[in-house]
Amino acid sequence: MADSPNCDLKSLSPLQLFERVTEQGEKVRALKAGKAPKDEIDAAVRMLLSLKLSYKTTTGQDYQAGLPPKDLVLINNGTTKEEDEDLVDPWNVQTSNAKGVDYDKLIVRFGSSKIDTDLINRIERATGQKPHHFLRRGIFFSHRDMDQVLDAYENKKPFYLYTGRGPSSQAMHVGHLIPFMFTKWLQEVFDVPLVIQLTDDEKYLWKDMTIEKAYEYARENAKDIIACGFDVNKTFIFSDLDYLGSSAGFYKNIVKVQKHVTFNQVKGIFGFTDSDCIGKISFPAIQAAPSFSSSFPQIFNGKENIQCLIPCAIDQDPYFRMTRDVAPRIGQPKPALLHSVFFPALQGAQTKMSASDPNSSIFLTDTPKQIKTKINKHAFSGGRDTIEEHRKYGGNCDVDVSFMYLTFFLEDDDRLEQLKQAYTSGELLTGELKKVLIETMQPLVAAHQERRKQVTDEIVKQFMTPRKLAFEF
Amino acid sequence: MADSPNCDLKSLSPLQLFERVTEQGEKVRALKAGKAPKDEIDAAVRMLLSLKLSYKTTTGQDYQAGLPPKDLVLINNGTTKEEDEDLVDPWNVQTSNAKGVDYDKLIVRFGSSKIDTDLINRIERATGQKPHHFLRRGIFFSHRDMDQVLDAYENKKPFYLYTGRGPSSQAMHVGHLIPFMFTKWLQEVFDVPLVIQLTDDEKYLWKDMTIEKAYEYARENAKDIIACGFDVNKTFIFSDLDYLGSSAGFYKNIVKVQKHVTFNQVKGIFGFTDSDCIGKISFPAIQAAPSFSSSFPQIFNGKENIQCLIPCAIDQDPYFRMTRDVAPRIGQPKPALLHSVFFPALQGAQTKMSASDPNSSIFLTDTPKQIKTKINKHAFSGGRDTIEEHRKYGGNCDVDVSFMYLTFFLEDDDRLEQLKQAYTSGELLTGELKKVLIETMQPLVAAHQERRKQVTDEIVKQFMTPRKLAFEF
Repeated sequence: MADSPNCDLKSLSPLQLFERVTEQGEKVRALKAGKAPKDEIDAAVRMLLSLKLSYKTTTGQDYQAGLPPKDLVLINNGTTKEEDEDLVDPWNVQTSNAKGVDYDKLIVRFGSSKIDTDLINRIERATGQKPHHFLRRGIFFSHRDMDQVLDAYENKKPFYLYTGRGPSSQAMHVGHLIPFMFTKWLQEVFDVPLVIQLTDDEKYLWKDMTIEKAYEYARENAKDIIACGFDVNKTFIFSDLDYLGSSAGFYKNIVKVQKHVTFNQVKGIFGFTDSDCIGKISFPAIQAAPSFSSSFPQIFNGKENIQCLIPCAIDQDPYFRMTRDVAPRIGQPKPALLHSVFFPALQGAQTKMSASDPNSSIFLTDTPKQIKTKINKHAFSGGRDTIEEHRKYGGNCDVDVSFMYLTFFLEDDDRLEQLKQAYTSGELLTGELKKVLIETMQPLVAAHQERRKQVTDEIVKQFMTPRKLAFEF
Repeated sequence: MADSPNCDLKSLSPLQLFERVTEQGEKVRALKAGKAPKDEIDAAVRMLLSLKLSYKTTTGQDYQAGLPPKDLVLINNGTTKEEDEDLVDPWNVQTSNAKGVDYDKLIVRFGSSKIDTDLINRIERATGQKPHHFLRRGIFFSHRDMDQVLDAYENKKPFYLYTGRGPSSQAMHVGHLIPFMFTKWLQEVFDVPLVIQLTDDEKYLWKDMTIEKAYEYARENAKDIIACGFDVNKTFIFSDLDYLGSSAGFYKNIVKVQKHVTFNQVKGIFGFTDSDCIGKISFPAIQAAPSFSSSFPQIFNGKENIQCLIPCAIDQDPYFRMTRDVAPRIGQPKPALLHSVFFPALQGAQTKMSASDPNSSIFLTDTPKQIKTKINKHAFSGGRDTIEEHRKYGGNCDVDVSFMYLTFFLEDDDRLEQLKQAYTSGELLTGELKKVLIETMQPLVAAHQERRKQVTDEIVKQFMTPRKLAFEF
């Protein structure tokens, strides 16, 4: 069996090899401490050296005690996270810095790559389109293998997009739209199929919620997602609770992933404990499986080797580090990723948004009046305490939530730059900046509500029915 | 969340409560040992007493350290199994006794009930049929809640049968037929629907086997099962890999079970470790879910409260102890069970059969000649070393495998009793007893092969298609 400790080293993942080296090192120490016979110690040392060699051959890195392989750095594990580091995993985002999480540090810790000017220019050349302002402004800031996706695209090889949402409540806020707005743009400029996973099973497992409620939220959230303007002929939206019971390929990929990931690994990656339910423990495979095109035989005609590109907030990266570790062992290509920063709460960039606190963001159901009140009352200001001081020293855009929101939603680069200069110089007051944000958000939310009204149950059903899309494979 | 250590005690299962009491006991001891402040110790003691009271209210038993609640005795755990006890779990059956496992002890350890004469008589009264020789001869020897099934049956309340097989290879042996022969009889005398699970996903997870191979074995094994003579209008056979991807209800029940079972629990029940893959860890929920009628909406019209009765070999009981623990917490009735003894290997009753050793049993594909050779060459004899000694002291039926096989397959009670007396008295020689077995098995296997030939791919497809059966719900 692949997971047996005595199986062929070649079949082991970098993380499994890392664990084997660590175990063997402990064994050698124990033998030495226990004054074991010399030949026994020698044999254990030879095994250790052979394991270290396999590790180097597989990962291209020397084994370093306590430093797991680059693609799989443990992040939710108290023993590896340093005291002053930000905490980022699928359920927690915490930082003590008002500017928000230190994303450059995160790139190093996660072992991903920065989206630099070269890559942005290359996307522009490949698509012939001006890069989205989320790229230009560093909102999507990190990636894995995006260059490979572009290589393939330039060679006319197909790929597909996969993103998702955990439907934890009926209410979505404007921050939830970020991955969808960007995915929509990617779909348009590359003209590729898109699958959107609604993890209603995850929400049932993690929250105090019935299955029926989780499924209802999935369908309600689908309406808001559809209202972003996706093309029904190119997009498949699915609830896990629904699709798992109606796809020949999805469960097979789930069980393949589940065979190749141990409890030790999900413990390291996600911080699960022995008291967690077995549903949580096996769930990562369910978020992994849509990365493989054979999970959608109806779309890809059963083809197994179509490259996947996943735009998501960086807190979802642990799922896909795990997926990338498993992929080659089940004969599948590794999914590529584009990571976004977190959308800040109105109260400040220290935490991720929370759908359960109505004042923490602007919700898609908010009235113009509610939007105005929320921004005026709750948006954390980088302005000075008095008008006099503000005029004299200027405001701080780095911590000002209104300005941050404008970087997300005000598409006009020149206008944004003007506002930044005026605010930083003290010329523009906090109230005036907030007014710009209110005037930006009110029509944006109203337009969304208008589009959402058009999304009937029949349209939701169309998007959520497993079917062929407008592409040939 | 239901699994949080601070949740309402009422929502905890007996095993969870047991664990809470144990933990709290340890806490009290630690506080006392650490000379903690008196009020802190007092508070911990009060909590301990309150937990013990909840435990008693829920289980009807006093808490006893190291003795988990009756319905959930840990069996695959080195710390609770005594030295001279038989090892019995879904993957291992080991005993040092040539007579086989001590089933009376197993009943006590598992907390099940013996199938006694009263129960057998009651089944006879309820069905108006002579009890199957597997019941009369103690081959099905243990049960859980069979009296409740009969109560319901006598009150015209419906129930259904659920059994299954792990398709670990193409080859099935005669021992594999035992649960199916008995289930067929139950179905006929009670006239109830039957579902048969083929756990191809389990075999993929546990063995060095591709998904495609596991699925192929499932379909091949289905042919042998169908050849037992099941009625296609009353029987649904399913492969997990197939049915999980085609049922609206099955996955929902799986995820419900997965939410209510922790890693700690499956570790205790099945002996899983941190190095096991997450597929194994979550698999028990997949074997549990068919115990709930809502996993088969097409058969039960979506009804959730239909009682399930599971005939199986007793090594499968750990899955259903877990299922019975979870059932009330997800609003479902506990499945009832009928347990069989293990079918002995030709070499002796110390171990369960193994499909991977062709000489360990009579296979359903064996020719008359192979059957003769195997029995003559491999069937462990309870006879004496020389004819003279045998004539003088007689043979021992308790350890003689040929005689054991005849108790399974020779339906004629009088003939069996005659053979027993003649063998025990020394009148009948080992070779003569083996001849009776050969003459019993050859036509039985030949008839099976004849019926199996009639099972076309089309018939397999009919049995394995989710559909309504010939019952109204």
